[in-house]
Amino acid sequence: MFKRLPRHVGIIPDGNRRWAQQQGMEKGEGYHHGISPGLRLYHLLLEHGIQEATIYGFTRDNNKRAKDQRDAFTRACVEVAHALEQRDADLLVLGNTGSPAFPQELLPYAGKRRSFGEGKIKLNLLVNYDWEWDLKTALTGGGQIASRDISRIDLLIRWGGRRRLSGFLPVQSVYADIYVVDDYWPDFTEQHFLDALNWYQDCDITLGG
Amino acid sequence: MFKRLPRHVGIIPDGNRRWAQQQGMEKGEGYHHGISPGLRLYHLLLEHGIQEATIYGFTRDNNKRAKDQRDAFTRACVEVAHALEQRDADLLVLGNTGSPAFPQELLPYAGKRRSFGEGKIKLNLLVNYDWEWDLKTALTGGGQIASRDISRIDLLIRWGGRRRLSGFLPVQSVYADIYVVDDYWPDFTEQHFLDALNWYQDCDITLGG
Repeated sequence: MFKRLPRHVGIIPDGNRRWAQQQGMEKGEGYHHGISPGLRLYHLLLEHGIQEATIYGFTRDNNKRAKDQRDAFTRACVEVAHALEQRDADLLVLGNTGSPAFPQELLPYAGKRRSFGEGKIKLNLLVNYDWEWDLKTALTGGGQIASRDISRIDLLIRWGGRRRLSGFLPVQSVYADIYVVDDYWPDFTEQHFLDALNWYQDCDITLGG
Repeated sequence: MFKRLPRHVGIIPDGNRRWAQQQGMEKGEGYHHGISPGLRLYHLLLEHGIQEATIYGFTRDNNKRAKDQRDAFTRACVEVAHALEQRDADLLVLGNTGSPAFPQELLPYAGKRRSFGEGKIKLNLLVNYDWEWDLKTALTGGGQIASRDISRIDLLIRWGGRRRLSGFLPVQSVYADIYVVDDYWPDFTEQHFLDALNWYQDCDITLGG
């Protein structure tokens, strides 16, 4: 169906709070409504044979938000991890576990990849991720960044209309082609993903050459 | 005129080769036609009081291209630097000077900022830049990356339609808002820049909060 597919897709599921406000809810209520889109996208990734995907859960900078929002996005990440362990996934949870913002329930998954079911896809879930922590780990970790087990991103899809990386894996994203969906993440549809793949197949990948 | 201006603007002047082909020229001839747009943009930056700008000259990866193209983009960078030293600019040329691809003529400008005329704007010209070299310098340079004297990018404008960073300053670009102009760089017009500033003033800058 597509003449060229990305090997590794990055996902920035933004717009949960704006979606909630639009629905007349409290901002923090949006995150819960972002879980089911994530699982629908997981099945689409498998269906199209995507080998690796990285989902932007939350970052150190997001911890500046109000407590009800922090609780809500942290709980959503825990729920997504538990849902994935019931499916086929080689799951890596990556983030700064040395900070109290990292959820205890996810410690067993943190920093080393674990295989669930038949594996089928490498899934990286960034939880309390911090680009500065990621890069600076190289200074103490023998030259290796914290995200060393995550490969180069080919296609980065961001929902919610913003045109920036917001600290998403700076090393792996250097040559990522960035596709922005204006709709908010809880309004995810299969067509968004197909449109991104369709756009990506015509990108001229030169890696600077 | 604008309710909020970027402090630091990044410039990716892409599309020179595609422009040349469109004009029936050899690919490498496009770079020469990218010099005058750069100087017009310099005057616009001053006019709008932009405090810092970084221009993507060429990268290590670009050195994979044919020799006539390498000669052409290297010469264009040297000419731009010489033109800027006749104007008001605090100029920093940054790139890996330890490689033969770095032009000898620019060694006097490399790695330390030099003030010309009345200064007025910090201008960073990336010449034989390499994101990996930049980051890895921290391992040998006491924790400091090679681009330590370049500040965070607020607005990144890329000409030529591609939606990616191509290794442009990964640390400084983590929260950059990215504006893509479909036209090729030699077809630069003042309106492109005004459209980018117009878009930027309505971007919601949260830095993750």
